Amino acid sequence: MKVAIIMGSDSDWGVMKSAAETLKTFGVDVDLTVASAHRTPQKVRDFVTESDAQIFIAAAGMAAHLAGVVASLTTKPVIGVPISSEPFRGLDALLSTVQMPGGVPVATVAVNGAKNAALFAVEMLALQDAALAEKLIAYRKQMATEIERKDQKLKEAFS
Amino acid sequence: MKVAIIMGSDSDWGVMKSAAETLKTFGVDVDLTVASAHRTPQKVRDFVTESDAQIFIAAAGMAAHLAGVVASLTTKPVIGVPISSEPFRGLDALLSTVQMPGGVPVATVAVNGAKNAALFAVEMLALQDAALAEKLIAYRKQMATEIERKDQKLKEAFS
Amino acid sequence: MKVAIIMGSDSDWGVMKSAAETLKTFGVDVDLTVASAHRTPQKVRDFVTESDAQIFIAAAGMAAHLAGVVASLTTKPVIGVPISSEPFRGLDALLSTVQMPGGVPVATVAVNGAKNAALFAVEMLALQDAALAEKLIAYRKQMATEIERKDQKLKEAFS
Amino acid sequence: MKVAIIMGSDSDWGVMKSAAETLKTFGVDVDLTVASAHRTPQKVRDFVTESDAQIFIAAAGMAAHLAGVVASLTTKPVIGVPISSEPFRGLDALLSTVQMPGGVPVATVAVNGAKNAALFAVEMLALQDAALAEKLIAYRKQMATEIERKDQKLKEAFS
Amino acid sequence: MKVAIIMGSDSDWGVMKSAAETLKTFGVDVDLTVASAHRTPQKVRDFVTESDAQIFIAAAGMAAHLAGVVASLTTKPVIGVPISSEPFRGLDALLSTVQMPGGVPVATVAVNGAKNAALFAVEMLALQDAALAEKLIAYRKQMATEIERKDQKLKEAFS
Amino acid sequence: MKVAIIMGSDSDWGVMKSAAETLKTFGVDVDLTVASAHRTPQKVRDFVTESDAQIFIAAAGMAAHLAGVVASLTTKPVIGVPISSEPFRGLDALLSTVQMPGGVPVATVAVNGAKNAALFAVEMLALQDAALAEKLIAYRKQMATEIERKDQKLKEAFS
Amino acid sequence: MKVAIIMGSDSDWGVMKSAAETLKTFGVDVDLTVASAHRTPQKVRDFVTESDAQIFIAAAGMAAHLAGVVASLTTKPVIGVPISSEPFRGLDALLSTVQMPGGVPVATVAVNGAKNAALFAVEMLALQDAALAEKLIAYRKQMATEIERKDQKLKEAFS
Amino acid sequence: MKVAIIMGSDSDWGVMKSAAETLKTFGVDVDLTVASAHRTPQKVRDFVTESDAQIFIAAAGMAAHLAGVVASLTTKPVIGVPISSEPFRGLDALLSTVQMPGGVPVATVAVNGAKNAALFAVEMLALQDAALAEKLIAYRKQMATEIERKDQKLKEAFS
Repeated sequence: MKVAIIMGSDSDWGVMKSAAETLKTFGVDVDLTVASAHRTPQKVRDFVTESDAQIFIAAAGMAAHLAGVVASLTTKPVIGVPISSEPFRGLDALLSTVQMPGGVPVATVAVNGAKNAALFAVEMLALQDAALAEKLIAYRKQMATEIERKDQKLKEAFS
Repeated sequence: MKVAIIMGSDSDWGVMKSAAETLKTFGVDVDLTVASAHRTPQKVRDFVTESDAQIFIAAAGMAAHLAGVVASLTTKPVIGVPISSEPFRGLDALLSTVQMPGGVPVATVAVNGAKNAALFAVEMLALQDAALAEKLIAYRKQMATEIERKDQKLKEAFS
Repeated sequence: MKVAIIMGSDSDWGVMKSAAETLKTFGVDVDLTVASAHRTPQKVRDFVTESDAQIFIAAAGMAAHLAGVVASLTTKPVIGVPISSEPFRGLDALLSTVQMPGGVPVATVAVNGAKNAALFAVEMLALQDAALAEKLIAYRKQMATEIERKDQKLKEAFS
Repeated sequence: MKVAIIMGSDSDWGVMKSAAETLKTFGVDVDLTVASAHRTPQKVRDFVTESDAQIFIAAAGMAAHLAGVVASLTTKPVIGVPISSEPFRGLDALLSTVQMPGGVPVATVAVNGAKNAALFAVEMLALQDAALAEKLIAYRKQMATEIERKDQKLKEAFS
Repeated sequence: MKVAIIMGSDSDWGVMKSAAETLKTFGVDVDLTVASAHRTPQKVRDFVTESDAQIFIAAAGMAAHLAGVVASLTTKPVIGVPISSEPFRGLDALLSTVQMPGGVPVATVAVNGAKNAALFAVEMLALQDAALAEKLIAYRKQMATEIERKDQKLKEAFS
Repeated sequence: MKVAIIMGSDSDWGVMKSAAETLKTFGVDVDLTVASAHRTPQKVRDFVTESDAQIFIAAAGMAAHLAGVVASLTTKPVIGVPISSEPFRGLDALLSTVQMPGGVPVATVAVNGAKNAALFAVEMLALQDAALAEKLIAYRKQMATEIERKDQKLKEAFS
Repeated sequence: MKVAIIMGSDSDWGVMKSAAETLKTFGVDVDLTVASAHRTPQKVRDFVTESDAQIFIAAAGMAAHLAGVVASLTTKPVIGVPISSEPFRGLDALLSTVQMPGGVPVATVAVNGAKNAALFAVEMLALQDAALAEKLIAYRKQMATEIERKDQKLKEAFS
Repeated sequence: MKVAIIMGSDSDWGVMKSAAETLKTFGVDVDLTVASAHRTPQKVRDFVTESDAQIFIAAAGMAAHLAGVVASLTTKPVIGVPISSEPFRGLDALLSTVQMPGGVPVATVAVNGAKNAALFAVEMLALQDAALAEKLIAYRKQMATEIERKDQKLKEAFS
């Protein structure tokens, strides 16, 4: 099981790190690259067509064409992560990523939603891996426990 | 292989029909239901927890909570389709669907992007089905051929 | 008289504290909980269906489904408080909270409008409590006096 | 039990009719008036201060000041209904209605959300009227039944 | 010659100070007050109806009703200054101020455009005061000279 | 008393007609011209510098520079009317008109707010013309009477 | 002199026709093609790298990646034309086209601004062709004459 | 070869410096000036009509009329750079710059996109200068090399 993370700029790493770490936590291999749809189109093509990853996560800001360009080169699932940047704080990246025309889908997560991109990739892989599916259920339970803990803490502080 | 399509209102069917038809074209079974996150929360819960579909496609307009609510009930992949409606033409539905907090992903397609939701579901299923993967590649080629045909037609008309 | 405040995340407490404090000022009991519509849907259901509060105030950010989910579970009045967060500064939360479809109302206040949510809850309770109604009128007078004081101070500073 | 509906223009009646009708359905008296915050400020003041209604529903478009102006004149609950109009389709009315400063709350529903304004008023009145509370629960059940019916119809049409 | 500046909150003074100072520079008297359309409606009415100012400048943020409310109480010219505030940075105040319905005009300047509000008031007063008209022309010339100076400075720094 | 109306395109006349008619109603002379800031900059300059009007009303759509360009050529009051056009429905024209930098004011009315532009011009002229001031007060009263009539009509229809 | 017009869909022709016609008017050859950045990436590459046009005009709607993709393949000037489409009316296309990251420029014109794209291409070509430069000046004069004619017509109709 | 950079305010220099530096890097002469469309219209006219530059780059914020005004005065290519400023972070400047009406084109780059404005100017000049065209290709290669370097660095850090 391998997921490729492709970023339009190394400055996206601050956000995308949590995607890589989340995938690692679930025991999924990560193939990481920086490749720009605009500045290194050939590198993007080579990376996508030669990769043995099952899923691509593409992150970019501004006129974020990367996820769409990756999706134009493969029929494997592509998840787009719009990255927030000044001055439009990701509205440009969101619309550039999600508003794909019919025929070439990009599955988009929230602006800067790196962790959810990783979790969604895991959900896809879990379709064919029961152990991974179990881990996802455990992950949800852990979140619920964490919220329960915070709830108690807040109640104690307020009362 | 089965994909469930859940709509917040039967008025969404005009848009979502093409999702159902696209899935059928690829030989994927479709489980269709109208269930509102707000008006029939119990029905949504029953449908999601009892369904044997591998993937959910959830479509809703306005404060489109349906995809998020479905995702809160399952760790199977959930694709959200924001539906355009007056007066905000889907901006409300897009933000309500895509801006999910960390931990519970919804993979969002374009506003009214029903066909791409179906294609993305097929891409996921194709990860474990080589025949389906072949069909996707054929589908892309067919689109390219269609564009080529339109290109020729336009050139003839203009020159 | 009891009002329940339900927050999607404990990080919302910085904003929602003033709602709790305002309710206390008016002698209204507060039932406080952290429960996420997406990460702990069961907890939300249990809290809402078991609560003896007369009114719910639900606060959440991003794709803020919490108020709508609470409203789907009760016919008691639900007030939604959209919480501002990066990068969309509450526009996502506002639209996700206010644009409810017909049949299941959520009464929405301003982004981060915690104090007004509390005051509106008090206005509702005052419909059946003349003493509370008096307190509201006194509260308004106090605001007017405070503005008068600031007005004088500014005039002195400027002239 | 009486709810006052105040509209900034008689052209808002096309939208607000369903609020009046919904209130009637629940056996709530309706006090109806057209009064503009800008063109007839005195009329607004007289209407609000003299009214024996328990709740106000105020509807206006564009720079929709009406709900805020009503709220400045009373400590009774005020529900604001932003009305959509060209060219901004209610975004101006929504922000003018919902973004009230701290101290003077307006409970806002969706743009053109007349029916939900009425339902929310009924929910408030039901806090002190058990029979009304029962009617609200019945109303929700009826909506669920209606959705079930549409669900069946759609399934039959598609299969 | 007198211009009244009315602010919805004393926190608007940081922005509006430059309006008062600009008016003083042109020898125009300033009548300054803090009065909230929502929290002190009576004070706003008294101030507007009793004022001997020829022009009103009204500044407010969020659901900025102040300029509209002032305009509803007088047929003297009213200039609206939308004040920026978190989270919508003045978009709410701009739309609430400028989108007035037909019949009751508010002349709106840029968000936080206090200086231009003052200059526009001076332009109005200059219609009946030739000396003031001269001062305005001198003010423009001074601006042009200042830009010329900055231009020279920049050219020297760059070359 | 004369007000000049300058339009960027003759297609703006459909909207601006009501400005001209309103001015006529108040006995104010109208000087009308079509002149584009971009396509006929010389004509705009000639018109503004040679005009004997006391006030300019400038109407334009899209990147609406006309009001700003007129204001750069005169220290007489300039009122800007943003004109709605596809696809951005006047948001571009509004921001292009209202967001003037400090030093050169444009008083902006609502998108397509031609009538209010005329009324505001009359309010300015009324500062030095008591008869005109009386007419404005009468105009307001007439509006109130008209609303009263519509109010009665609606009440009769509903009851 | 040759300019290539590349459209993401043949449905863009309704808008882009005027670009082709304008170029013809100026005696510039037009190379026309329909090629989608997402559906026919190879065709886009072949077209751009093999074309002998000096300038590219790329038109696309929604997540409009076409201009950016063309610019990634050439250092010749690329003009982007955002095409309006439902539901976001070109805001998505505008941001996807104009917000290019540093290093790979796309010169963007107004949404649906096909004619201006052509005129800008002509302006570039006129840098090395004095006759073409003359034609541009004549074109401007003709526009001014046309506006003068409309101005006269309007004045006659109004007076 | 000369490119003129005209800025509406000297405060734009922080952004526009990189345009001037990029042009210098490519051996293109730069003619720099600060001139405001609103505060110094005559200076803008003089500068544009007297300049011997082949191309104009115009930068301005807020109601950014500068590029349009420059374009109204010349048929040479004009590139507009919208400058971000509070509170609308360049949305006002972008729409004011890009949404030019048909007939007078402004080629717009990203908000604060000074470097791309310079590169686009170089691309235009390279149409008649083979050496410059070579430099552009080398510049792209250098960018690709830089990305490759960052890619390696990130991979090392992550593995």
